[in-house]
Amino acid sequence: MTDEPITATLLISCRDQKGLVAAVSDFLYRNNGNIIHADQHTDQEEGVFLQRVEWELEGFDVAREEIEATFKPIALRFGMEWALHFSDYQPSVALFVSKLPHCLYDLLGRWRMGELRGTVPLVISNHDDHREIAESYGITFHSLPVTDNKAQQENVALKLLQEWDIDTVVLARYMQILSPEFVARYPNRLINIHHSFLPAFAGARPYHQAHERGVKIIGATAHYVTPELDQGPIIQQDVAGVSHRDSVNDLVRKGRDLEKIVLARAVDLHLRNRILVYGNKTVVFD
Amino acid sequence: MTDEPITATLLISCRDQKGLVAAVSDFLYRNNGNIIHADQHTDQEEGVFLQRVEWELEGFDVAREEIEATFKPIALRFGMEWALHFSDYQPSVALFVSKLPHCLYDLLGRWRMGELRGTVPLVISNHDDHREIAESYGITFHSLPVTDNKAQQENVALKLLQEWDIDTVVLARYMQILSPEFVARYPNRLINIHHSFLPAFAGARPYHQAHERGVKIIGATAHYVTPELDQGPIIQQDVAGVSHRDSVNDLVRKGRDLEKIVLARAVDLHLRNRILVYGNKTVVFD
Amino acid sequence: MTDEPITATLLISCRDQKGLVAAVSDFLYRNNGNIIHADQHTDQEEGVFLQRVEWELEGFDVAREEIEATFKPIALRFGMEWALHFSDYQPSVALFVSKLPHCLYDLLGRWRMGELRGTVPLVISNHDDHREIAESYGITFHSLPVTDNKAQQENVALKLLQEWDIDTVVLARYMQILSPEFVARYPNRLINIHHSFLPAFAGARPYHQAHERGVKIIGATAHYVTPELDQGPIIQQDVAGVSHRDSVNDLVRKGRDLEKIVLARAVDLHLRNRILVYGNKTVVFD
Amino acid sequence: MTDEPITATLLISCRDQKGLVAAVSDFLYRNNGNIIHADQHTDQEEGVFLQRVEWELEGFDVAREEIEATFKPIALRFGMEWALHFSDYQPSVALFVSKLPHCLYDLLGRWRMGELRGTVPLVISNHDDHREIAESYGITFHSLPVTDNKAQQENVALKLLQEWDIDTVVLARYMQILSPEFVARYPNRLINIHHSFLPAFAGARPYHQAHERGVKIIGATAHYVTPELDQGPIIQQDVAGVSHRDSVNDLVRKGRDLEKIVLARAVDLHLRNRILVYGNKTVVFD
Repeated sequence: MTDEPITATLLISCRDQKGLVAAVSDFLYRNNGNIIHADQHTDQEEGVFLQRVEWELEGFDVAREEIEATFKPIALRFGMEWALHFSDYQPSVALFVSKLPHCLYDLLGRWRMGELRGTVPLVISNHDDHREIAESYGITFHSLPVTDNKAQQENVALKLLQEWDIDTVVLARYMQILSPEFVARYPNRLINIHHSFLPAFAGARPYHQAHERGVKIIGATAHYVTPELDQGPIIQQDVAGVSHRDSVNDLVRKGRDLEKIVLARAVDLHLRNRILVYGNKTVVFD
Repeated sequence: MTDEPITATLLISCRDQKGLVAAVSDFLYRNNGNIIHADQHTDQEEGVFLQRVEWELEGFDVAREEIEATFKPIALRFGMEWALHFSDYQPSVALFVSKLPHCLYDLLGRWRMGELRGTVPLVISNHDDHREIAESYGITFHSLPVTDNKAQQENVALKLLQEWDIDTVVLARYMQILSPEFVARYPNRLINIHHSFLPAFAGARPYHQAHERGVKIIGATAHYVTPELDQGPIIQQDVAGVSHRDSVNDLVRKGRDLEKIVLARAVDLHLRNRILVYGNKTVVFD
Repeated sequence: MTDEPITATLLISCRDQKGLVAAVSDFLYRNNGNIIHADQHTDQEEGVFLQRVEWELEGFDVAREEIEATFKPIALRFGMEWALHFSDYQPSVALFVSKLPHCLYDLLGRWRMGELRGTVPLVISNHDDHREIAESYGITFHSLPVTDNKAQQENVALKLLQEWDIDTVVLARYMQILSPEFVARYPNRLINIHHSFLPAFAGARPYHQAHERGVKIIGATAHYVTPELDQGPIIQQDVAGVSHRDSVNDLVRKGRDLEKIVLARAVDLHLRNRILVYGNKTVVFD
Repeated sequence: MTDEPITATLLISCRDQKGLVAAVSDFLYRNNGNIIHADQHTDQEEGVFLQRVEWELEGFDVAREEIEATFKPIALRFGMEWALHFSDYQPSVALFVSKLPHCLYDLLGRWRMGELRGTVPLVISNHDDHREIAESYGITFHSLPVTDNKAQQENVALKLLQEWDIDTVVLARYMQILSPEFVARYPNRLINIHHSFLPAFAGARPYHQAHERGVKIIGATAHYVTPELDQGPIIQQDVAGVSHRDSVNDLVRKGRDLEKIVLARAVDLHLRNRILVYGNKTVVFD
C-alpha cells in the first residue's frame, strides 16, 4: 500500500449537458494527466450528471496547489458542484459508540492495519465502558452521558469535534438520536449503521421486529444521517439468511457481523472519496 | 426421481411438552418405520413444538389406510394439530396470472420437467394474453376480467377451483387483491409472490418505491395470503444487489428473476409438505 | 421497452495511452452525441484500456452509415480494436441443448417476453426430446445425434448455423464437447453454462464432485468457449448455499436454478454488447 | 447470555439403524429431560446416522456426573461413536497467526465481548509482530520463528499447547504448513481458514490465482486440517462478488472480510459443539 502513487480526485455533479466528459478529459489530457480511475453516471430521469476521476499527481503539468484554480473555469462553465481531494490527505475520523463495541473494535482493528485512509484520534461514548480499548489504541476517549439536557451533551461533543478538527463522524452503534442541529453540522460526513435492511424495520429494536415478522433474511444498512431518522441516503447494505431456528439473540449475533462489515465498507468508500450524494441517494463509484 | 420410495409424512404442531419426540419416534419404531427425514423445532418463547417426520411405507407394519387411526390416540394425548400426507398423492394446483408471465412460464416449465410434486390443470387470468401458452401445455385457461363486480368474478373463480378440485392456489404475479372471503377459502394453501423483500415496500409498485429510496438491494418474497395485504406468513425471500446504474426498468428486469425463483421454491416446499404455519410465521423444514 | 431510443455502441480495447478518453468523448461531443452510457477500464498491470460508450442516434450529426468511417481515423491513431453496434439490430441466436431443458425453457420464455435483444430461430440437439417445445415457439428444431463420426455431426451443425446466419451460439446444457475447429468459428460468440463455480469442479459430473467434497456452496459459471475445456473467459457466476441435508439430487435441483439464471444473464449481457474480452478475461460493463 | 440455562449435549454418530431416535428420545424422556435443541441427519448413501441433542441439566433426573455411565448402554447397543459436552465448560483455544492480523483481531474482539464459548489464553506466531495486541488482551504470546528445523519449532509449539491444556487450535492466517505429526495431535480440533472457495485455488496465493483466472466471485473456506493440504472437511464457506475493477489488492482486501467472518463462524460452531465429522465431511447442526 505504501508505494501507491499520490493522486488527485475530482468529484463532480451538475445538470446533464453535452460536452461534460469531453471537457474534463480534455483538461486532464492537455495537462498530461495519467488517469487511474474514471467513472460517471447520468441519472436520465433527474437530468443529473455525476463523475469521479482520479489521476496521478506525478507527471501532471499543473502544480498541486494550482489544480483548483485551473479547473475552476470549467466548473463554472457547466455549473458544477465539485470537490478536489488528494490521496495523501488523512482525514480525521471520530467514532461514536454506546454499549455494543463490535463496530468499534472492527474499525480500530482496520485502522491499526492501515486499511483506512484516515486517522482516528477521538472516540466519544455516552458510557464509559470502552475507554480501555480506545486508550489501548492510543486514542482519546470521552464519555458524555446523555442526561436530561441532551443539547448540552451535544454541544460538548461538537466542541470536541472542532478541537480535534474532525472531518467525518461515524456512529458505530451509537444508540442516541442526534438533534437536527448536530446533524446539520456534518452534512454527508456523518455515517450511521442501522441494524436492518432499510426501509424495513426503521426505528428501535429492528431484530425484534424482524423476528416478530418472521422474515427469512436480515440485513444492515450504512447511510448518511439526515434529520429524518433512518431516512438518509443509503451507502451500503448487506443481508444474511435466517430461519425459524434463529431466536432474537441469534439474529442479534448474526446481525453484528453484517453491521460491522457494512459500516466498515461505507467508511472506507467515504474516505476514498468514492461516494457522491444527490437528492436522497448515493452514487458509489467502487 | 421415478424410483423414489413412497413415503408418509406427519406434520405436527402442539404445545411444547416432554415426551413428544419420544412418543412419535416410538410409534414409528414399534411399527418398523424406516425414517427418511425428521426435523423438529421448539419455539421457546411461544412454547410451541413443531415436527415433520417422513418414513417409507414399504415395510411399515401399519397399512396405509390405517395409519391415521393408529396415530390418532397419540395426537389426542398431546393435543396435536396434525396432518398426514403420502408422497404419491399429486395435489392439484391452479395458477393465477395477470399480464407478466415470467412466473407462469417458469412454473409450467418446471411442471413439464417433472420438478413439481403436483399437477397444474388450471390457469386463471384477468386477461386473455396467456391463453395460448397455457393451452400449449394442455392446461385449461379461463380469463375472468375484473369488472365493477369483483365479487362475481371471484365467485366464478371459486367455482372453477371447486370443479377442478384444486388444493393449492398460486398467485403467479396476479395483480388483483383478493377479498377476505376468497382468502379464507384457502388457508395456508394460497401462495403469493410479492416483488420486494417484505416488509419493505409492501403495496403497489415496489420497484418504483425501491428506486425512489435508493436501496442497494432489492428482493422478492413468497408468502401465504391472509386478509391483511402483504402481511401473511413469509415462506421464502431472496435478494439481489443493485446500484445507481439500475433504472426502474433494470430493477423490474432483475426482480423478475428473483420473483420466479423465490415463488417456485415456495411452491416446491409447499407441495413437498415442508412448511408448517403457526401464528403469522412459517417453519420450513428444508 | 418499445420506446427506447435507438443507440450506437462503441466497444474499444487498446494499449493504454493518454488522450484516449479525451479523443472519444471529443468525437461524440463535436458531433453532438447524447451519451446514454459510458464506462471504461484500465488494466494497470497489462497496460490495457477498454471502453464502452453508447449514445443516441437521434440528433447525432454523423449519419448512421458513416459513423464507422468517421471514427476510423481515431481508432487508427490509437491502434484500437473496436466494434460498432446499433441497438435495433437483432442478432440471431442458436440454442444447443441435450437432455435437460431448463435453460432452453428459460431462454425461450425470455425471448417470447421480449426480454432478449435478439431472435432465436434455431434449436439444435443431439436428441429429439425437445422438438415439440421448440416448435411450439415456432422455432426450427434439428436433432443431430452424435455418432462415431462427431466431425460429421459438427459439420451439419455448422452448415445450419451458416444457413440461418447465426451470430451467437448458446450451449444451454449441451453435453457434447465441441471440437477446436468448431469453437474457432465462433470466437467470443459461443457461450456455455458450466454447472459449477469454475475453476472448481471442471469436467464431468460437477455436482457429484461437489457432494463428494462436502462443499457448503455450489455454483454455476457462464463463459465463452475456448478450445481448452471449461477454461474460457468467465462472464457470470453465481452460487447458492447447500448443507449436509442436500443429496446429489438436491444439488442438481438447486443448481438448475443457478444455471438458468446465470446463463440468461450472460446471454443478455452479450446481446446488449456489454462484454469485452481480453486475454482470458472479460470486462462486463453492466 | 449469562442467564442461559446449563445444558448437556450429546453428539452421536453410528451406522443407521431403526430405533435410534426412539432410544435416545426415550432416554431423555424417562429421565425428565427438557430438550432445547435436537437435530439429526441420515446419510442414505453411506448408511450413517448423526444426531445432536441438547437438554437442560436442571430438572434432569440423572446427575451430571452420572449421565455418561447412564447413557453408555444405549451407545453400546447401537455401536455409537459419541461425545458428551456441558455448556458451562470453557474450552481453551490457541490462536496461530503469521503476518496478517485481521482474523486475530476479530477473534480477540469476539472473545472480549463474550461471544465465544471458550477462553483464549495463548497466541503463537512465527513472527513477533502481534505481541503487543495479544498482550493488551492479557494473553500469553510466543513467537516461534520457523527456521531450518521446523520439527523443532513444532515441538516447542506442541509443548506449549500441552502446558496450556489447549482443546482447539485455530490457524488464524498462519502461513506455515504443519507436519502430519502435528496435525494428528488435534484431530477435528484444528481449524484453518483458507482464502479461497475450496476446492478452487488450493495452495499458495489464491487471490493471485483468482485474479489470473478472471473469476467473478471470490471466497473463503474454514476447514478442519488433515495431513492433505487444504483437503480437510469443510465447515463454512462464504463468497463475495468481484469484477474487472478489482485488482489483486482489492481481492485481498475484500477477502479479508470473508476470511474473518467465515473463520469466526466456524470457531463458534465448533465451540458450541454444533459440528460432527464423518468421512471427509462435516454435518453442521446450526
